[in-house]
Amino acid sequence: MPTILYQDQFLSRDQGKVDMEDRGYQFGDGIYEAIRVYGGRLFLLDLHMKRLERSARELRLQLPYSIDHLTDNLRTLIAKNQIDDGLVYFQITRGAAPRQHLFPEETESVLTGSAISLSREDALRPDGIKASLIDDIRWLRCDIKTLNLLGNVLAKQKAHEQGSEEAILHRGDTVTEGSSCNVFIVKEGRLITHPADHFILNGITRLFVLDLAERLDIPVQERLFSTEELLSADEVFITSTGAEVKPVVQIGDQLIAGGRPGVIAGRLMDAFDKEVTRIRTAALS
Amino acid sequence: MPTILYQDQFLSRDQGKVDMEDRGYQFGDGIYEAIRVYGGRLFLLDLHMKRLERSARELRLQLPYSIDHLTDNLRTLIAKNQIDDGLVYFQITRGAAPRQHLFPEETESVLTGSAISLSREDALRPDGIKASLIDDIRWLRCDIKTLNLLGNVLAKQKAHEQGSEEAILHRGDTVTEGSSCNVFIVKEGRLITHPADHFILNGITRLFVLDLAERLDIPVQERLFSTEELLSADEVFITSTGAEVKPVVQIGDQLIAGGRPGVIAGRLMDAFDKEVTRIRTAALS
Repeated sequence: MPTILYQDQFLSRDQGKVDMEDRGYQFGDGIYEAIRVYGGRLFLLDLHMKRLERSARELRLQLPYSIDHLTDNLRTLIAKNQIDDGLVYFQITRGAAPRQHLFPEETESVLTGSAISLSREDALRPDGIKASLIDDIRWLRCDIKTLNLLGNVLAKQKAHEQGSEEAILHRGDTVTEGSSCNVFIVKEGRLITHPADHFILNGITRLFVLDLAERLDIPVQERLFSTEELLSADEVFITSTGAEVKPVVQIGDQLIAGGRPGVIAGRLMDAFDKEVTRIRTAALS
Repeated sequence: MPTILYQDQFLSRDQGKVDMEDRGYQFGDGIYEAIRVYGGRLFLLDLHMKRLERSARELRLQLPYSIDHLTDNLRTLIAKNQIDDGLVYFQITRGAAPRQHLFPEETESVLTGSAISLSREDALRPDGIKASLIDDIRWLRCDIKTLNLLGNVLAKQKAHEQGSEEAILHRGDTVTEGSSCNVFIVKEGRLITHPADHFILNGITRLFVLDLAERLDIPVQERLFSTEELLSADEVFITSTGAEVKPVVQIGDQLIAGGRPGVIAGRLMDAFDKEVTRIRTAALS
């Protein structure tokens, strides 16, 4: 049975229980991170932890442990579950209190975490995927990585029922992001993606891809773009912690760039791959 | 120690635990109701249960028990906790599944419920309250009574820190509802409240007050109204399950109708009171 993290303790999975009045359970009053693991190592750890601290600040939620202590525990969790390539998920809620909307005076934040194996072979989609355009009906603070995820869930489910792997969300004419990823388009050799404001979650893989683009001298524009620009783009791809860079070759009924992954996505995937290989090699040495 | 309801079982409060991968805990993927209890009886039960069924349908969530069976259990919960005037809260989540956004193929919905005492003396505010105007940043399906409540929580908290008891929410110029109540204004003897569309939760007390207004021959308009109309209204009041009809006598720095509860709110409060007295008397006989 897998080992999970509950607060500061390592428990067997079946002991992972929380209180029925935990505010995470009654209000979705909590935050989370999912961190990629390559060769047993936490990938882009610092960026994830910075975002976690920001989410906590925005909700005025107390982190129960220091980042260093939490990181040690996540590493132990990876080791105990013998994860090579995988994913660590953890969430922190405001904890249990008699139900009322207002922040309770004193609660103990509750941390729960788990680690699963996820091979790159299973996660990547080098040939590209089909996506669906879905209305973005979520709240206006999508920049905070909270447990209020029903809007994302419903969008992903709708896309799935249209035979798509992902939902590309739009508010009116403007493309925002995916249901659990960020969206990039390529126009005349230039990368375009929604700016990191309140309408999107600033993905860690998004940030890493922007960094790779700079290293590869690919020009980038962080600006609003329309559904029309999306559908007529030279390339479309999405980025996420689990699946890295994923070409989108069809949106609804329409093929993108003839239905084949694009050149710039390819360059970014190669650069990503090199970075992962470097990390895995370092982990072995 | 209080008795709580977990699925079909009555447990002591400290046994009220749920799985860490319950989708209610990780996605807020669940629905709830809070029902007023007067004299040990569930008030406006049928309307609450109809709304529960609608919420479940909208999220394609399976109710774990029939409405009759659930009602029996809620009545037993009230009796076991010896509630006279109070509040029953229960929620139903999609249950536990390995974390991914898509609806899992098979899960067992999880029901948790509790009952608390709440006297009318403690809940009502016949002299009126102060409210704050707060931006409505919630998602666009506020009509579903889900556990994704962070937008409501943050609004209520903000109002509280401005010395107000409630947040009156607005999208642009349009007033929608409160953070946990509906909003009514009175103009020239006429009740005005936001129509029951996707932007508000169709409160059971809202419906009951609309019914009382009809019985009292008070004309009603369900239509959009602006923040300007709100601030210049003859009367403002809010309605909620816990607090019935609650006059609002100040919004931000501005007094409403000279800072005194209005005549129409008073008539509705009297009619409400009579109805509760009738129910309590019937419960005793």
